Amino acid sequence: MKEIKLKSFDGYKYIDGGVCAAFGFRAGGVYAGIKKSPKSDGNDSDIKHKNDLGMIQSDVVCNTAAVYTQNKVKGAPILVTRANLEATGGKARAVIVNSKNANTCNADGEQKAEKMCELTAKMLGCEPQEVVVASTGVIGEILPIEPIEKAMPMLVMSLCVSNNDAAAEAIMTTDTFPKQNAVEFIVGGKVCHLGGMSKGSGMINPNMATTLNFLTTDCAVSVEMLQKALNETVDKTYNCLSIDGDQSTNDMAVLMSSGMAKNEEIASDGADFEAFKQALYIVMMNLTRMLAIDGEGATKLIECNVSGAESEKDARAIAKSVISSSLVKTAIFGEDANWGRILCAIGYADAEFDIKKMFVSISSESGEITVCENGSGVAFSEEKAAEILAQEEIIINISLGNGSGKASAWGCDLTYDYVKINGEYRT
Amino acid sequence: MKEIKLKSFDGYKYIDGGVCAAFGFRAGGVYAGIKKSPKSDGNDSDIKHKNDLGMIQSDVVCNTAAVYTQNKVKGAPILVTRANLEATGGKARAVIVNSKNANTCNADGEQKAEKMCELTAKMLGCEPQEVVVASTGVIGEILPIEPIEKAMPMLVMSLCVSNNDAAAEAIMTTDTFPKQNAVEFIVGGKVCHLGGMSKGSGMINPNMATTLNFLTTDCAVSVEMLQKALNETVDKTYNCLSIDGDQSTNDMAVLMSSGMAKNEEIASDGADFEAFKQALYIVMMNLTRMLAIDGEGATKLIECNVSGAESEKDARAIAKSVISSSLVKTAIFGEDANWGRILCAIGYADAEFDIKKMFVSISSESGEITVCENGSGVAFSEEKAAEILAQEEIIINISLGNGSGKASAWGCDLTYDYVKINGEYRT
Repeated sequence: MKEIKLKSFDGYKYIDGGVCAAFGFRAGGVYAGIKKSPKSDGNDSDIKHKNDLGMIQSDVVCNTAAVYTQNKVKGAPILVTRANLEATGGKARAVIVNSKNANTCNADGEQKAEKMCELTAKMLGCEPQEVVVASTGVIGEILPIEPIEKAMPMLVMSLCVSNNDAAAEAIMTTDTFPKQNAVEFIVGGKVCHLGGMSKGSGMINPNMATTLNFLTTDCAVSVEMLQKALNETVDKTYNCLSIDGDQSTNDMAVLMSSGMAKNEEIASDGADFEAFKQALYIVMMNLTRMLAIDGEGATKLIECNVSGAESEKDARAIAKSVISSSLVKTAIFGEDANWGRILCAIGYADAEFDIKKMFVSISSESGEITVCENGSGVAFSEEKAAEILAQEEIIINISLGNGSGKASAWGCDLTYDYVKINGEYRT
Repeated sequence: MKEIKLKSFDGYKYIDGGVCAAFGFRAGGVYAGIKKSPKSDGNDSDIKHKNDLGMIQSDVVCNTAAVYTQNKVKGAPILVTRANLEATGGKARAVIVNSKNANTCNADGEQKAEKMCELTAKMLGCEPQEVVVASTGVIGEILPIEPIEKAMPMLVMSLCVSNNDAAAEAIMTTDTFPKQNAVEFIVGGKVCHLGGMSKGSGMINPNMATTLNFLTTDCAVSVEMLQKALNETVDKTYNCLSIDGDQSTNDMAVLMSSGMAKNEEIASDGADFEAFKQALYIVMMNLTRMLAIDGEGATKLIECNVSGAESEKDARAIAKSVISSSLVKTAIFGEDANWGRILCAIGYADAEFDIKKMFVSISSESGEITVCENGSGVAFSEEKAAEILAQEEIIINISLGNGSGKASAWGCDLTYDYVKINGEYRT
């Protein structure tokens, strides 16, 4: 299992539990058999039974915020979840989510997504509109509802043990490890918790809530401020991630607050809101880095830090452009300090800069080398470069000297295995 | 050598000769040794001596049009060529071009590019400003001028045999074959010729004049109308090509007219201009398809034809989005009819459409299958799909049912060899 190095933040403590770390939430996951092996003739004992159906449930009605993919081809679960949260004014009790089938581009897609909400509501004793539904997997194959219906009692039973690991496994597709993170922090003198889980490995591009992301907290926050915190943090985390430039039809990030930490509800800007937003940033930033290092076929995490831009927007455009470049990604895979490709990717970003003021360095645990000063190449030790690039986390630092705008973006290298995974995915 | 199938056009005849097909032009290429093998200690007899320095020369001063990369990091040759053509009002006598070194991001880049113009002008007896200079290769390595200076007499001698093949080889980098095309046509009762050569295999993305492209004609056209024809045709050809989404720092397309066909100079819109533009389209479209099939590591040419869009702009955005998708590209490599990825790429294109009216089919020499009707999947024979996808030229047809806008774009599959070529390029 690939691991990221967790950075420390004053006042925030990493804890276990993922989406179950906050008071009031349970989670579970089971193997429902949503996609049978086409070769097994009903006998699929040869398949590894990875969980493919997950649930998050709250004891109380939660204030809930969500962001969705900007892809104009939207999965049916996106349409149904959006309608549900609009109907309830941002209140939810549960999440039902499956992998192995995206339930997208099917004539009966919305009907099936609504059915998943109904089945969940019936088991949990809530309204179907209080259910968030999500699907991930192959596009354009009819979603079989029978295995989901059959698995529902087992799924609800799995909630009893606060099974966040089982839920995190259930949402995986080509992911090689489950992605969870959680922190403990103080708001208004009360101990609060915030945790989350993510899935995603391919079809990931920075444009609103890439991948599936579920976040829970017991910190009391109004629906409006939850949505504000989620929007602002998505821009700095998930939207700064690119694996392959393909933006999914089914992306969604959902943030639920049970309010069970008993702090005074955060209903406006201020110190409490900032403290809460920082917790959200830490968890989402770490999940983003986990998504990056687990990009399809990836062997390395690439982080690009841009400073000295005219604006944060410009800094972000440049950072994203660099980590999205196929040529930068293959160079990092080949452990080749081919910095000309970094400058090329900076050059086609939608941002202003003065090439004559640009500095670029490459760093990792093994040290740092400057490769470009004032827009021109500088001599560096190829030996030192090779040492730096042999590490798993590679950092590209760009200083523009134009202002105070800064931003980070995360991606991964492009490898033979990306081609292998995606050349053979459906079959 | 990979080959594209040439489509026929009434009134236009394919001819040999590339950039030498038109009256008044000569070309040549030599091995100058611009990049010595780092391991050879001066004795580089072990390297294949691919030509790395090329020239096009005209007997007369030519009306000349050019388009350049939109990358904000521009190669020094781009800056020098643009200044030269501005100084002369679009008049040129010759092109000097090298591969193996992009002469970009070097402190002395412009000085070296100007020196290349001076050396050329001295040999040919023209002004340095009448020379177009271009470079392609690694970014950020100092260009050695000595081998170019030494090779200049041999290069000029090589012009004597109208050596378009030698010139086409000289501009190659990771290309696996030289790219040339030419046609004969009639304007104002006079027989005219137009031919061209291109290079490029990676760092290719649709945004103004990707790759290096040199086009020559004897058809008499004013500078203004030459530029207009080039701009319009670049939009429909080179700008509809993507190999890897990386837009080069050194892209340039140059069109020179010797006027030696003796037709009345085309100085305004009308039938003559349309006939000329069609010749330009045929040659540039064929060169575009050659660039696509020779994309780094490519095994297949992908053509995406979009019709029924609200506008040509929308059609082009969708066609480009599909051929640029890493997931579509890997699926085509894997010969997998994973059409959900096509719909996903349509969905994130910057264009309007109604998903419920969308039809998608996949075709090749082996036939055609419809995979999506009215935005939902339809059953198709996997066996037939496999037959179709086994061919070298794969066509994706998208019909939107919204209007009369249509466009085509060209790309290639994403393969293990793309990763291999780019993981090891610099070293």
